[in-house]
Amino acid sequence: MLVGTSIYELSTPVPVIDEAVVAGNIARVQSYMDAHGLAFRPHIKTHKIPALAEAQREAGARGINCQKISEAEVFADAGFDDILITFNILGAEKLDPLSVLNTRARLKVVADGRQTVAGLASQFSADQPLTVLVECDTGGGRCGVQGPTDAFDLAKAIAAAPGLRFGGLLTYPKPSSEEAVEAFFSATLALLAEAGIDCPVVSTGGTPSLYSAHKVPSATEYRAGTYIYNDRAMMRAGHASLDQCAMHVLATVVSRPTETRAVLDSGSKALTSDLLGFEDYGLIVDYPDARITGLSEEHAVVDLSACARKPEIGEKLRIIPNHTCVVSNMFDAVVFHHEGVVTRRLPVAARGRVW
Amino acid sequence: MLVGTSIYELSTPVPVIDEAVVAGNIARVQSYMDAHGLAFRPHIKTHKIPALAEAQREAGARGINCQKISEAEVFADAGFDDILITFNILGAEKLDPLSVLNTRARLKVVADGRQTVAGLASQFSADQPLTVLVECDTGGGRCGVQGPTDAFDLAKAIAAAPGLRFGGLLTYPKPSSEEAVEAFFSATLALLAEAGIDCPVVSTGGTPSLYSAHKVPSATEYRAGTYIYNDRAMMRAGHASLDQCAMHVLATVVSRPTETRAVLDSGSKALTSDLLGFEDYGLIVDYPDARITGLSEEHAVVDLSACARKPEIGEKLRIIPNHTCVVSNMFDAVVFHHEGVVTRRLPVAARGRVW
Repeated sequence: MLVGTSIYELSTPVPVIDEAVVAGNIARVQSYMDAHGLAFRPHIKTHKIPALAEAQREAGARGINCQKISEAEVFADAGFDDILITFNILGAEKLDPLSVLNTRARLKVVADGRQTVAGLASQFSADQPLTVLVECDTGGGRCGVQGPTDAFDLAKAIAAAPGLRFGGLLTYPKPSSEEAVEAFFSATLALLAEAGIDCPVVSTGGTPSLYSAHKVPSATEYRAGTYIYNDRAMMRAGHASLDQCAMHVLATVVSRPTETRAVLDSGSKALTSDLLGFEDYGLIVDYPDARITGLSEEHAVVDLSACARKPEIGEKLRIIPNHTCVVSNMFDAVVFHHEGVVTRRLPVAARGRVW
Repeated sequence: MLVGTSIYELSTPVPVIDEAVVAGNIARVQSYMDAHGLAFRPHIKTHKIPALAEAQREAGARGINCQKISEAEVFADAGFDDILITFNILGAEKLDPLSVLNTRARLKVVADGRQTVAGLASQFSADQPLTVLVECDTGGGRCGVQGPTDAFDLAKAIAAAPGLRFGGLLTYPKPSSEEAVEAFFSATLALLAEAGIDCPVVSTGGTPSLYSAHKVPSATEYRAGTYIYNDRAMMRAGHASLDQCAMHVLATVVSRPTETRAVLDSGSKALTSDLLGFEDYGLIVDYPDARITGLSEEHAVVDLSACARKPEIGEKLRIIPNHTCVVSNMFDAVVFHHEGVVTRRLPVAARGRVW
């Protein structure tokens, strides 16, 4: 891998990241957040690379968002000290490393139930308290307390624990549900205010409807990850244009068994099986009428029926994946380029950090 | 990670592999192959671990099957010298490492087209020839020449190239298509025999209908990977019972937001999004009526509507993944156990080797 060579000389499949597009994505979103007075906390899950989190911080981001302790450890090692882990942390095998991490960074975690808060409360003490936000299910249907009263009750339990500090409210909302998010937050904030409990942070997030963040006036913070690379799902959501997709998976046509079938070397180990509502596995930029109809681990089967012009064996194609974050997680390193010329190769430092 | 501790003390999500089930799977399949006089060549894609390939070899396997050069390099480093790479290899960036590898192992590759054969022919010479098998599409619809005449023509082209040796015929068939495979092979073998071209190997494979391997009398070799661990898809195919599934993904219930919803810490970074025709993302052994209806990267959302008994927060559950091979590829290491007690932890040495 030589800096200065063409990306088309790389061994495929390989994710290639356009430096200028990344820089543009960082600047555009930070500028929107600044204009609306929202603290912006990028989620590192998309890139998992400290150097990119550093670029996000330089642009004005305040802190980072990780999903797991083992990811946060990688970023603490790289010098990041304002880290939010948006995951319920349970069990001695996780609470012990969490308390070590809490001595190394200004750490925040979330909780959505009594058992989780009880576990955290038993692990932490007033001399090194842990900040805990209440995760709210505002319609996303994943984790979170189900209503403002439950959120308020859990906030009180956190505030009452000597080793914990109530850090605020947080949601991972359904896209375009700003009204529901605001209703949940404002009702909970009213209960907290009435009880005299300070709520330092009100955090929402998600890339798809990021540019509607200002429609949640209660929010003080926004979290997003995918915006830095973008992908086919973000194009469909109206968040990004084709030119704002920084990651392409470069793949080679390795077989043309029939007139209408091509096989690429980008299987599920490269593109992943994430469909996200699509019926095929990515957009082939060079042949937009081609459809990746099936993946096995190392092969992508492509239907060329609708293509006037068809790719030949040996040709290298650029694919915008359905979901960029999961592609990052497949590779030990990714290659960056400027106008197709390799600029650097960075390890995906937090790849595979699932606990 | 301590040998001798319970797997339930491990930080989740984590794939745990039952030593006895692995040993049973290896012995049972090898015994079938021996009984039918088929050379058995395990595909390492399922485990990606040299120590397991060694156990397969000790049981009687002849050689290994890799999908990519970078995988084969890992196994050559570990001392394996009979390696078949079942992938069309194209381009200088791949042909150069392939020729290095060909000096270190008895290497075989496949080809299904003139361009691929021409590329190989230009790279290799008579003093260190490369063995090339013709890949046949017997109905699988992926790579492969489309009929016996094409297979014969390509075999002639390989045999005519000074740097190449014709190594035989190979297919990755659709499950339960033994009749079509036999028809393709026997017709091609007749053409080869007529032309006086020796066909040293006739190779078919796949775990789902492995126990029908003897229904392809022309075949001399069988390749399979998944059988060593098995998974939910192999249970559906009738190849394996629940007790013959060696890999479980161990996951923790991290949230119970509603009466009928649980959230586990095993998202697509652990289970992968491979559906393989299922509508949900794995079988929860401890709660077979629960359904994993959605995955995000770190969360699995579980519908408990049909469960009489429901899991509690903090509980650790065993999940049989839809597809075991892709799970191996997500983790840097996997944990082995005997009756739930950890025996060893092995790096997934060939993880992420996609080129």
